[in-house]
Amino acid sequence: MLKGPFLSKDFIGSLNSFAEAKTVLIGMPFDGTTTNRPGTRFAPQAIRLESIGIETYSPIFDKDLEDCRFYDAGDLDLPFGNAQRVLNIIKENAVQIYSAGKKILGVGGEHLVTLAEIEAIKEFYSNIVVIQFDAHTDLRDEYLGEKLTHSGVMKQIANLIGFENIAQIGIRSGEKEEFELMKTYSTLKHRYEELDNFRDKNIFITIDLDVLDPGIMSGVGTPEAGGMSYNELLGWLKYLSMDFNIIGMDVVELAPDIDTTKNSTAAACKIIRECLMML
Amino acid sequence: MLKGPFLSKDFIGSLNSFAEAKTVLIGMPFDGTTTNRPGTRFAPQAIRLESIGIETYSPIFDKDLEDCRFYDAGDLDLPFGNAQRVLNIIKENAVQIYSAGKKILGVGGEHLVTLAEIEAIKEFYSNIVVIQFDAHTDLRDEYLGEKLTHSGVMKQIANLIGFENIAQIGIRSGEKEEFELMKTYSTLKHRYEELDNFRDKNIFITIDLDVLDPGIMSGVGTPEAGGMSYNELLGWLKYLSMDFNIIGMDVVELAPDIDTTKNSTAAACKIIRECLMML
Amino acid sequence: MLKGPFLSKDFIGSLNSFAEAKTVLIGMPFDGTTTNRPGTRFAPQAIRLESIGIETYSPIFDKDLEDCRFYDAGDLDLPFGNAQRVLNIIKENAVQIYSAGKKILGVGGEHLVTLAEIEAIKEFYSNIVVIQFDAHTDLRDEYLGEKLTHSGVMKQIANLIGFENIAQIGIRSGEKEEFELMKTYSTLKHRYEELDNFRDKNIFITIDLDVLDPGIMSGVGTPEAGGMSYNELLGWLKYLSMDFNIIGMDVVELAPDIDTTKNSTAAACKIIRECLMML
Amino acid sequence: MLKGPFLSKDFIGSLNSFAEAKTVLIGMPFDGTTTNRPGTRFAPQAIRLESIGIETYSPIFDKDLEDCRFYDAGDLDLPFGNAQRVLNIIKENAVQIYSAGKKILGVGGEHLVTLAEIEAIKEFYSNIVVIQFDAHTDLRDEYLGEKLTHSGVMKQIANLIGFENIAQIGIRSGEKEEFELMKTYSTLKHRYEELDNFRDKNIFITIDLDVLDPGIMSGVGTPEAGGMSYNELLGWLKYLSMDFNIIGMDVVELAPDIDTTKNSTAAACKIIRECLMML
Amino acid sequence: MLKGPFLSKDFIGSLNSFAEAKTVLIGMPFDGTTTNRPGTRFAPQAIRLESIGIETYSPIFDKDLEDCRFYDAGDLDLPFGNAQRVLNIIKENAVQIYSAGKKILGVGGEHLVTLAEIEAIKEFYSNIVVIQFDAHTDLRDEYLGEKLTHSGVMKQIANLIGFENIAQIGIRSGEKEEFELMKTYSTLKHRYEELDNFRDKNIFITIDLDVLDPGIMSGVGTPEAGGMSYNELLGWLKYLSMDFNIIGMDVVELAPDIDTTKNSTAAACKIIRECLMML
Amino acid sequence: MLKGPFLSKDFIGSLNSFAEAKTVLIGMPFDGTTTNRPGTRFAPQAIRLESIGIETYSPIFDKDLEDCRFYDAGDLDLPFGNAQRVLNIIKENAVQIYSAGKKILGVGGEHLVTLAEIEAIKEFYSNIVVIQFDAHTDLRDEYLGEKLTHSGVMKQIANLIGFENIAQIGIRSGEKEEFELMKTYSTLKHRYEELDNFRDKNIFITIDLDVLDPGIMSGVGTPEAGGMSYNELLGWLKYLSMDFNIIGMDVVELAPDIDTTKNSTAAACKIIRECLMML
Repeated sequence: MLKGPFLSKDFIGSLNSFAEAKTVLIGMPFDGTTTNRPGTRFAPQAIRLESIGIETYSPIFDKDLEDCRFYDAGDLDLPFGNAQRVLNIIKENAVQIYSAGKKILGVGGEHLVTLAEIEAIKEFYSNIVVIQFDAHTDLRDEYLGEKLTHSGVMKQIANLIGFENIAQIGIRSGEKEEFELMKTYSTLKHRYEELDNFRDKNIFITIDLDVLDPGIMSGVGTPEAGGMSYNELLGWLKYLSMDFNIIGMDVVELAPDIDTTKNSTAAACKIIRECLMML
Repeated sequence: MLKGPFLSKDFIGSLNSFAEAKTVLIGMPFDGTTTNRPGTRFAPQAIRLESIGIETYSPIFDKDLEDCRFYDAGDLDLPFGNAQRVLNIIKENAVQIYSAGKKILGVGGEHLVTLAEIEAIKEFYSNIVVIQFDAHTDLRDEYLGEKLTHSGVMKQIANLIGFENIAQIGIRSGEKEEFELMKTYSTLKHRYEELDNFRDKNIFITIDLDVLDPGIMSGVGTPEAGGMSYNELLGWLKYLSMDFNIIGMDVVELAPDIDTTKNSTAAACKIIRECLMML
Repeated sequence: MLKGPFLSKDFIGSLNSFAEAKTVLIGMPFDGTTTNRPGTRFAPQAIRLESIGIETYSPIFDKDLEDCRFYDAGDLDLPFGNAQRVLNIIKENAVQIYSAGKKILGVGGEHLVTLAEIEAIKEFYSNIVVIQFDAHTDLRDEYLGEKLTHSGVMKQIANLIGFENIAQIGIRSGEKEEFELMKTYSTLKHRYEELDNFRDKNIFITIDLDVLDPGIMSGVGTPEAGGMSYNELLGWLKYLSMDFNIIGMDVVELAPDIDTTKNSTAAACKIIRECLMML
Repeated sequence: MLKGPFLSKDFIGSLNSFAEAKTVLIGMPFDGTTTNRPGTRFAPQAIRLESIGIETYSPIFDKDLEDCRFYDAGDLDLPFGNAQRVLNIIKENAVQIYSAGKKILGVGGEHLVTLAEIEAIKEFYSNIVVIQFDAHTDLRDEYLGEKLTHSGVMKQIANLIGFENIAQIGIRSGEKEEFELMKTYSTLKHRYEELDNFRDKNIFITIDLDVLDPGIMSGVGTPEAGGMSYNELLGWLKYLSMDFNIIGMDVVELAPDIDTTKNSTAAACKIIRECLMML
Repeated sequence: MLKGPFLSKDFIGSLNSFAEAKTVLIGMPFDGTTTNRPGTRFAPQAIRLESIGIETYSPIFDKDLEDCRFYDAGDLDLPFGNAQRVLNIIKENAVQIYSAGKKILGVGGEHLVTLAEIEAIKEFYSNIVVIQFDAHTDLRDEYLGEKLTHSGVMKQIANLIGFENIAQIGIRSGEKEEFELMKTYSTLKHRYEELDNFRDKNIFITIDLDVLDPGIMSGVGTPEAGGMSYNELLGWLKYLSMDFNIIGMDVVELAPDIDTTKNSTAAACKIIRECLMML
Repeated sequence: MLKGPFLSKDFIGSLNSFAEAKTVLIGMPFDGTTTNRPGTRFAPQAIRLESIGIETYSPIFDKDLEDCRFYDAGDLDLPFGNAQRVLNIIKENAVQIYSAGKKILGVGGEHLVTLAEIEAIKEFYSNIVVIQFDAHTDLRDEYLGEKLTHSGVMKQIANLIGFENIAQIGIRSGEKEEFELMKTYSTLKHRYEELDNFRDKNIFITIDLDVLDPGIMSGVGTPEAGGMSYNELLGWLKYLSMDFNIIGMDVVELAPDIDTTKNSTAAACKIIRECLMML
């Protein structure tokens, strides 16, 4: 072999070995049901590449990635145009991660991938709660006749774990029927304390990056003006890092090529860094 | 004819008939007096195209576009390099809209087009007040010798309806003389309540999109740092939707190609959706 | 109604009526099986919009679009993530066009849409030959397990009409097996005269815009360096306009947002103009 | 003053003094009659800035800019929305250049500016011939009612100097009537030798950069596929540099911001360098 | 000479003479030690060009650039790949500015250039305090073995003037060791009043534009989500304009080509305008 | 470990082991002496990422990457602002490659990196000839006082191996003195046959991608209009693949972010694929 030194091809701070890791970062480059601008398929690799530009130290958690013991497994090779097969492959790998006693940090791809993660986790945990950061309700029953879509993923998940185990934060767009569903089940949360009754649950956090304002996260397929600031999102994450039992996370819906400044990708990297510190 | 189904070529939610509408959306693709970066001529078509990506339901107004009964008349075919002729054509069409007992929702193009709308409305209403959301005073008497310019449009309108019937919100750029005019006539407003004495007036609202911060509305020709957030603008609109008599609106100065993410255009679509709900 | 004048929302030169047309332009905004950069779903509307910038007169054909009697039917509303349903909808509409004694000018979307057009035409014509302009063989039997893909569309068409009725021009990329198929059936053509034995056939011409060099057609998902010049393509089309019986055409694979200069879209408009003159 | 060294703010190789120059480079940042994408107003400054990146030595002319004795006078400050006043200002300055016994190298801005240059030159020279490199005929009598437009500039010039003194090279787009005019007066030239009967004339060369193929000159407002290569253009210029009496030149219609790679601007710089060597 | 009128090639409002100026704006186009995305070398010229689009009047300071008596000296011609020589040239010119009894307004280029300015000022002033607006600590002792880098510039300056004379505002990224240094010396300031004990000092203000949120300042090489708003930065500057003795300023780290909307450059222009009003 | 399937993080077709390879691809992300637009530091990773989109089969060589037995070693971690240290690291690794009996396929970064490769190779081979594809002579003795620069790299190499062992193809820009050097030593070649007297030599081929026309390779820092077509370059490579003894190659000067279409990067991938087939 060569002496180098060589730059890593992995997300910054990754271990070289699956075995030693407690968290597994896995890329899911799928955007087959995206309704508006596609391109989230390119997110995991763009994030991996850009991660070289961020610090491994987080001032907010006063911690370094080197202390996080995570392993970047790479990106799954997923078929085009067959959502069910994609979900099967993701689920199968997620099951392996939890079988090995580790946690997942999923990197999308579109939001539908979360469904497969939850299906896998359900084989290992009960009392699952999903906390969703998102601009959109994602509660459609179907879209143009399809059940498996990025705009209906939370509906599918609610079918699995119950609406009472869904918390939605940052939602500002959807159909009238979806907003009514949110009201019926009081899933929409505005203050930290509204999450406190989930403290004895097993929590999966899914971050659709379009929860952030398009001004700071312009690289998404369905931007919605009027979103959360980066520091607001971090406030929520910081709160959730204290005395909540987090069993997995994902960060989805970055479409990196839309934002040619790469600032969206850089922000995603930092969010993933903070997530790794929470797991 | 073909069975389809076909996508609409109109702004999302438009009726197919002028006759049934109570509001008429009309595009005015003119940027002939733009001083810095041109390109607002492309806004109405870009907005129409992008509108397919937004929801027809507004959570803020808890209302759907289907309930708004508006008709998208398309874009006027306007001559280049002759501002007066452009204004004549716009005025003529606006007169037809008000003759038919309807209201206008104008989509620019540059801000000068508002002058023609007000001239038309003046033939139908008295006690007109213009509420201007803008980064710039637009109170120049002339620019390089020309009276009809996008940076002097409010001066021309003030000449028509009086400075006391002008309210300006969000202004943060202009010449010293223009700021002195604002002070003399107290046109600059900072709080909702300052508008309350216009409740018995006939109000036209003109939204120059550069009133928003360039961070969230980067697709404008003369960006001014330090602007309003999207939610602040919506706060104003929501307030104005309650017990003010709004007789027309326009949304101007989007230069869509400057913002290649298309987020500026998407935000403009949502603002127009909210405007349609106010009319 | 309003007096206007208004700009058309259709492709430049379109008639207002389906009935009077001899050619029907129809948009097929589908990119569900695209393997590399998606985005062809935005092509038909981008082309329609940009067409306002080209002349209606073609110096090469010395003819004006006004003489072509075509109707722009608009864009089909196609479901996401279900290629078979998409093909069904396209076929159904294409059948209606040919039932009415007209010809199709299809505008993609990705190349898979051509399969549905040929299936429709087969109900009306025998002795069909498909002449394909393309950088890629599109002869894969399957891609990641799927038969219906943009990289296998010509294989599917060959299954319908026979390899001896396929002519391929401009191909420069594919798998070894695909190039061997081309050799076996001598489908690859280099000179005009090689097409002469198709003069008594019913010819459908499908133009994958990536046949052009990426230098002049950068807005495609799978660019292949070393392609044809615009004038070379026009040379082929001019030759085919003389004494060949052309029964339909399509222009596919433009991904307009990749080329922010819009020059790719402008070139596509001109190619479509020339196609309309051939039909 | 400071010691520096400082970079020049002028086009590379410019003298510091008007008096010593034999050629005067002057920017004309006007795009008021542009029909499609505006932005040529930004060309002269973009070119000046980019010129720092090119060599002062031309291998084709085997000559250095230092030997050319030209002065970069800067950009005229031109009013918006009043084409006639713009032309007056340009003409006035051009007259001053020729009064001082120098030649002009005009940098547009849109093509209309050439009219003012020719009007000025006519006060000093007879037997003027204009050789136009362009994709468009520019022979419209009017456009939307206006005579003074970038698409009719050659018609106006023909009115001044006669159609027999117009040579057009690279034309590939226009209306039917315009192409008929070209045929009537045989203005379109294809081979070098067709210019030889202008050897005893006073020649002004106007280069509309869209004569080049959009693949290599994507930063123009009305791109026309199928254009000239850079080396073909240089071939013509090289030929014209031998035994033709060139009394002025201009380079127009670059819209620099359309081509974010800046390659269009860089190519324009090199063309201007070669022009300076011809004067 | 020509009559014109001509646009200035300088930053808007510049005097024509060094002698009459009290402040000297000087460009330092150097980015040789940039760690992530380079391109700040293009900032001073981009800013100069864009400045034509802003007003000379500042509503915040109620003052006009015409009253500021500054001179735009242009951009230094700096060698590539030799940081020490670059610093020497900058220092030499800065010394000349202060020798002439004037103040500097430096425009970067990367942040390392500030070191040379402070070295020069130290020859004229004692009791120097540097107030740094920045996203990054810039306190690295070395980076890949180099001491002279943009990520260690404040460490070098602290070595010159002492950590107690450093105030850092807006910092949100760095290594663990750097954050510990900040804690040890309490350099990080959060409220205006924390600066009050510097009122009897000679203050140099250095503004690394990445202190702003990437949403409004996307044109920087190392964007850090979660930054200051434009109005927050202006609040600090306004406070510092009152009864602090400011002896110099610089504005660094704009990488203009990253933000193709040019909004970052426009914001930088306005910040420089406000700085000129403070000096 | 996980079952996957996973996408490779290497250049498409790479072996997993250094030991089995006969060719080693190594990235050299350095752009410290770039004179115009920097950014080549991002090329190797962008190329690696994009390579997933090309075919492994080359129709020109009728061969598949799977038959090439190469190993992608990754990117060297190179210090900023110290060209000599960068060259040392590269040389050291190149020496290891040749010690192991393998050949190098270097991927820049800027052109200066070639110097280190040649220095390494000189320890293993005599009779070395360097064939340079480039727009620029790269024969400067120094640039702003520095000897080690990307515009002087061939001068440095000529000092090592003699001008008579340099062949230059595609050169079209440089200073007068550089062109005179080319003439003196007849290094500039125009026809294949001019290379034939190098058949008994050990040949290193260095491809500066700006040898290609900017129309098809817009992602370079110093674009020069009038370059080679992709097929012309391939013609040269095909000729060199026949009976020349090629001992190493590199592909340099791609600045991927300049070309947001990514077509430049895609073309670079294909050129590297063809290079791997030649080694």
